[in-house]
Amino acid sequence: MPAWDAYVTPAEQALARREWGRPQGTGTRPALLVVDVTRAFADDRYPLGCPHPRPCIDAIRRLLETVRRLGLPVVYTSGLPARNPAERGLWKSSGRPPAPSLPDPNQIVPELEPLPTESVVRKRRPSAFFGTELASLLTYHGVDTVIVTGMVTSGCVRATVVDAFSHNLRVVVPEEAVADRIAASHAIALFDIHLKYGDVHPLSEVLTWLETLGGDAGAGR
Amino acid sequence: MPAWDAYVTPAEQALARREWGRPQGTGTRPALLVVDVTRAFADDRYPLGCPHPRPCIDAIRRLLETVRRLGLPVVYTSGLPARNPAERGLWKSSGRPPAPSLPDPNQIVPELEPLPTESVVRKRRPSAFFGTELASLLTYHGVDTVIVTGMVTSGCVRATVVDAFSHNLRVVVPEEAVADRIAASHAIALFDIHLKYGDVHPLSEVLTWLETLGGDAGAGR
Amino acid sequence: MPAWDAYVTPAEQALARREWGRPQGTGTRPALLVVDVTRAFADDRYPLGCPHPRPCIDAIRRLLETVRRLGLPVVYTSGLPARNPAERGLWKSSGRPPAPSLPDPNQIVPELEPLPTESVVRKRRPSAFFGTELASLLTYHGVDTVIVTGMVTSGCVRATVVDAFSHNLRVVVPEEAVADRIAASHAIALFDIHLKYGDVHPLSEVLTWLETLGGDAGAGR
Amino acid sequence: MPAWDAYVTPAEQALARREWGRPQGTGTRPALLVVDVTRAFADDRYPLGCPHPRPCIDAIRRLLETVRRLGLPVVYTSGLPARNPAERGLWKSSGRPPAPSLPDPNQIVPELEPLPTESVVRKRRPSAFFGTELASLLTYHGVDTVIVTGMVTSGCVRATVVDAFSHNLRVVVPEEAVADRIAASHAIALFDIHLKYGDVHPLSEVLTWLETLGGDAGAGR
Repeated sequence: MPAWDAYVTPAEQALARREWGRPQGTGTRPALLVVDVTRAFADDRYPLGCPHPRPCIDAIRRLLETVRRLGLPVVYTSGLPARNPAERGLWKSSGRPPAPSLPDPNQIVPELEPLPTESVVRKRRPSAFFGTELASLLTYHGVDTVIVTGMVTSGCVRATVVDAFSHNLRVVVPEEAVADRIAASHAIALFDIHLKYGDVHPLSEVLTWLETLGGDAGAGR
Repeated sequence: MPAWDAYVTPAEQALARREWGRPQGTGTRPALLVVDVTRAFADDRYPLGCPHPRPCIDAIRRLLETVRRLGLPVVYTSGLPARNPAERGLWKSSGRPPAPSLPDPNQIVPELEPLPTESVVRKRRPSAFFGTELASLLTYHGVDTVIVTGMVTSGCVRATVVDAFSHNLRVVVPEEAVADRIAASHAIALFDIHLKYGDVHPLSEVLTWLETLGGDAGAGR
Repeated sequence: MPAWDAYVTPAEQALARREWGRPQGTGTRPALLVVDVTRAFADDRYPLGCPHPRPCIDAIRRLLETVRRLGLPVVYTSGLPARNPAERGLWKSSGRPPAPSLPDPNQIVPELEPLPTESVVRKRRPSAFFGTELASLLTYHGVDTVIVTGMVTSGCVRATVVDAFSHNLRVVVPEEAVADRIAASHAIALFDIHLKYGDVHPLSEVLTWLETLGGDAGAGR
Repeated sequence: MPAWDAYVTPAEQALARREWGRPQGTGTRPALLVVDVTRAFADDRYPLGCPHPRPCIDAIRRLLETVRRLGLPVVYTSGLPARNPAERGLWKSSGRPPAPSLPDPNQIVPELEPLPTESVVRKRRPSAFFGTELASLLTYHGVDTVIVTGMVTSGCVRATVVDAFSHNLRVVVPEEAVADRIAASHAIALFDIHLKYGDVHPLSEVLTWLETLGGDAGAGR
């Protein structure tokens, strides 16, 4: 995973790896989290859209095919519009609305359309866990591992990873299934996560691992 | 604040700043948070110690003098030893204990010794808010702004900043009062925070702002 | 407040009051919480409707007039329909839908229609704080006290009171502004709250107290 | 379970049971929670001690023998002394200290001494989940059901039950394993819980159910 090699010196990596970076390992009952792959972030006609969202969406679509086939739980997040300043909170963004001709920015992209059995957690803060029922949904499904995907790597994805780790859920981040607008923020988020909070792997390895789980993994409630 | 200029290209900064980076501004009732400035992180004889902790400790000491004089609340965090694997959780660190001759790794460094009126929140996860009563303590004190300091910038400091922002507390990070072992992780944490979640300022500006609050700011409960 | 005298013996009250029941007192910046005064609970044509909701709705309407005039924050809660079993969770209720001819059960009753500046927190669990952004909204508004009203006293009202208390918010319950279907559950909820977690007062006293706050109380953000 | 028959009329019970009181049922991976069975609550020489704690302690001891033999997780709670008013919070109790000759009020009673593998969560608020890492510990252990025991039924036990339910954990309350100082508060807490949030059963039935789980239930991480 060389993305972060451009930013972290070999000496720093050696120092860090002396105590950190042990493999966390995966459990047997994963859920797929799809964080904010809505028009607002996945379409660059919107103010906060990522310029090249396609590879990330494709990677998530492949994960979705596998986890649905295995009967594993999937939870999406989407933004919730603010009706007043308290609901908007303290974001340092312009809050500029998209062009009026564009459809709802909080709509999940059509390629990843949720099924009725899959929950969409509406949120106004970075972490998918903050002020939402995500932790309760994962407990309901008996989940021990989360595969965290979506946008943007250094923002809502990273905040969700830190909270999942804090909840004692194992964390897997398929490298191709997350995206950001800032190259260094993306690379360092993956570096920090892989050092301390979860395992960053190529998509192909995550798909291979999922296949080993067989049909039993889906036998939750 | 040029720390992140080495990592983020001018074009990316321009893209980011088109929608992000508005000043958040400060409230009138701040608290000082001192995150994990314990021997474990502030003394490099310990496995996870930062190599050059002195400037950060000095900066926090100066902040502490000011906020104590103004009667503002201070909350520290410190680690809580794990008695069993569930309490240790899923950290990807070696968990190697310090040399037996060294004193308690979770002791706050003597220069920053807490007063009895100041709370020390014990924690086992990155954010000072996660699984602790920090939010309740800040509500008790009527706080609207947190000055986040300590170690390490990309770890517990950043996670605490994201949660403080999510709780609708304004966030101020005095640049000299946070430290990390990895230069890029430190710089990018400050970049991401300053773009979205809070205001990163030089220590001198934070001290100047605090003096403008006068004695009234401390008139909480 | 004799509602609980029918249930708790004088000897028990004496024992309890030796250590408990000190006045908690009020702060200077209250918010009004209106819990679940939706058709589902306030109209007995719905499966879980309270049989005599009118006095409770009238009491809340009077509180609403006063707090709106004073510019104080108001937050409502309303149920959120479950799309799948995980969202429904483990409620021991039948989950029987209302008659198809009836309007949306999660609509707040028309007499208490929220203004656009007032937030409606959607929830699926008893406490208005659980899995919601209520705590963040109250922090935004700089609130130190919550006036908890709505339905039902022993369920969502009580759970909200316990969480508000735990967040270090002072709790005021105007006795006429809460309702339940079970007389003993209602009376004991008020007894337990008044003993430990907050102050139960007649509506008239709460209205009198609010008037003492003057216009300044509303001068939040 | 006739404890609540003295308080709730047959007509009210019939009304309530039309929509509520469906069996919740148990999962396959329970944990035992022992809430606040410390000297402070289990010894009436302390200000808040229950007058007749013995049957409750004996019932928990029997549960403990069984769950330990089966290798199931156990988590205790204990109070955490307050060093300042913010830590004490807004409790309406006198806060009167016990006689100086008495041992630490927050010590768990000797009959229920925790093993090193069993966690003790220190708390200052009613619910064992509030401001603690309890939810994370239960996730680590892969728990789907909690057996909630301890003191007092209408206070910390009830608050813990409501939060466990909200986290989507199934709740079992063995009737003999909870205690309170107020008969009506005890009975109504059990009534409200059994109606909505969990299943109240005689201890004998809980022990019989546990034996059916066999050794596999303990095969968590």
